[in-house]
Amino acid sequence: MYNSDSEKNRCRIVVDAMGGDFAPQNAVLGAIQAQQQNNNFELYLVGKKDAIKKVIESNQLSFKDENIFHAEEVIEMADPPTASLKLKPKSSIVLGAQMVKEKKADAFVSAGNTGAMMAASTLIIGRIPGVGRPTIGQAMPNQTGISALFDVGASVDSKPRHLLEYALMGTIFTREMYGIENPKVGILSVGEEKEKGNEVSLAAAELIRKTNLNFVGNVEGRDILKGTVNVVVCDGFVGNILIKFGESVLDFLKFKFRDFANKSIINKLKIALVRSSMREILKDFDYQEYGGVPLLGINGISIIGHGSSSPKAVKNMVLKAYEMHEKKLVSKIENSIKQYSNLN
Amino acid sequence: MYNSDSEKNRCRIVVDAMGGDFAPQNAVLGAIQAQQQNNNFELYLVGKKDAIKKVIESNQLSFKDENIFHAEEVIEMADPPTASLKLKPKSSIVLGAQMVKEKKADAFVSAGNTGAMMAASTLIIGRIPGVGRPTIGQAMPNQTGISALFDVGASVDSKPRHLLEYALMGTIFTREMYGIENPKVGILSVGEEKEKGNEVSLAAAELIRKTNLNFVGNVEGRDILKGTVNVVVCDGFVGNILIKFGESVLDFLKFKFRDFANKSIINKLKIALVRSSMREILKDFDYQEYGGVPLLGINGISIIGHGSSSPKAVKNMVLKAYEMHEKKLVSKIENSIKQYSNLN
Repeated sequence: MYNSDSEKNRCRIVVDAMGGDFAPQNAVLGAIQAQQQNNNFELYLVGKKDAIKKVIESNQLSFKDENIFHAEEVIEMADPPTASLKLKPKSSIVLGAQMVKEKKADAFVSAGNTGAMMAASTLIIGRIPGVGRPTIGQAMPNQTGISALFDVGASVDSKPRHLLEYALMGTIFTREMYGIENPKVGILSVGEEKEKGNEVSLAAAELIRKTNLNFVGNVEGRDILKGTVNVVVCDGFVGNILIKFGESVLDFLKFKFRDFANKSIINKLKIALVRSSMREILKDFDYQEYGGVPLLGINGISIIGHGSSSPKAVKNMVLKAYEMHEKKLVSKIENSIKQYSNLN
Repeated sequence: MYNSDSEKNRCRIVVDAMGGDFAPQNAVLGAIQAQQQNNNFELYLVGKKDAIKKVIESNQLSFKDENIFHAEEVIEMADPPTASLKLKPKSSIVLGAQMVKEKKADAFVSAGNTGAMMAASTLIIGRIPGVGRPTIGQAMPNQTGISALFDVGASVDSKPRHLLEYALMGTIFTREMYGIENPKVGILSVGEEKEKGNEVSLAAAELIRKTNLNFVGNVEGRDILKGTVNVVVCDGFVGNILIKFGESVLDFLKFKFRDFANKSIINKLKIALVRSSMREILKDFDYQEYGGVPLLGINGISIIGHGSSSPKAVKNMVLKAYEMHEKKLVSKIENSIKQYSNLN
């Protein structure tokens, strides 16, 4: 049992039951699996009530009826992101975001339409005061551990101030979520030398240098997997292209291995022998494995998952939302942004 | 024997004997190997005459003395690119570029200081009329053949007009050098939809749409290795970060395989069994294998090699310069640029 105090601070996570290519199945199963693994938070499901109950019943699970919030509409994967919020005001994405906005929930998790989820988070939940641009980070394994790339697609044409914000938010995220005490921060550029870069990266580096962040200056494309820094800062245009390229490396290698195997029986045997090892080694490039990505800079917790999210991926997203809440990510970001509000 | 007419048009290639980490050894050997393989061009070597002759003699090669052009100075790899041209006016890079400028040579090949080579090409040889920004392309293998990325580092903060130029030059290069009849061109962006992109990519796409190029619109990071298009157009900031990331994939995989092998004897055996196959498969990511990259948009042929170029890499650069000359790349680019001089 919880005492009234911890009950009051009990984390409330709302999951978009209609989000993702395999909704409501994967979303509902994943959310309930997270609750089974960790009972310290209150789980809400938002979406078509009948459909949700059907998944619960057909999987012989139990779930409190009052924690299911009915949403009549569904924003489909192909719907136009921002316009959908107005066109479908009773959709699960709009209602979920409103629950966080109205402090009825602390976190919102969805594997639905990414653009709509970003728009709902930014426009309905709203930004933390002082944040110009929210950011999506992508964790990537490297030779020494893990590094995270900010931004990977929340926004393009970032201004220097926005890159500074990514550095501040990325530092807090990496420190709190990966336990890296004083994360090294680098700005992505075309050379290590201080004078190398484009207009925005050079101006941003000047701003970041004025903070107390553990800033090492420029890093290059090769430094990401090398693990030179923990936080790699870049404009969302670059970051998005980069992670999509990175993901495609996996497909390309699979293609090459298949091609190689098809050349001879011997080759086929060789590949068969190492197939499972190879899968193990290559899965680092399957960024979908990492579950959802948080949208930082929002005045609440917002986690966006891949459309193809498995129940396990949804479970991990929910558990990540819980961890972000417990570690008070939002208020820590707010304080850090406030501290450097004068840097422009 | 050559008749006077073909003698007049005989391609003259000058190789920077002092360029690269293993100069003059690798540069001289590679250049002479190219000549041994193809005797249809005139080979010049520029650099410290004594050092060049020593390499020729110690390798028991023969080379016409009058084709060695003495350069007293050497621009080192760490020298400041543009400033070096003034600080070392008698360097092999400056003299080689001057030979092309003065029409004493058709092509200049160097594995030396990349920045200095770009500066010498742009400032001494000069740009083709109408070209705002020269561009460096990088060929990458993909699932269907080969695609080339323009620009990968000649310039950052490209304007839309510059991206149009990369598309025009990239099309000619890919068509002539890879024999792709009507190369598909895509502009790198954060989504396939026409409205996705940053300010510059969106405006550039509008310009490219007005040409007769085989333009498919936006492509994403994943399309490069997939082979969706033959020419991928992007700003040099993005392109440079991308190819350095791509190169580092190779190191990362090597690291992962080593790590895996070290876990057990069985793993070690598995890896040993497939080592050579693996090397074969992974070498696609070793972009150094592709030899030098041409700087397009220059009023002459300029090929820049990696500092660590082997004799074979230098040989390939020289043969590529010859091919570019025979295929009249420079005048074809000039015509194409002229055709679209009104698009801005």
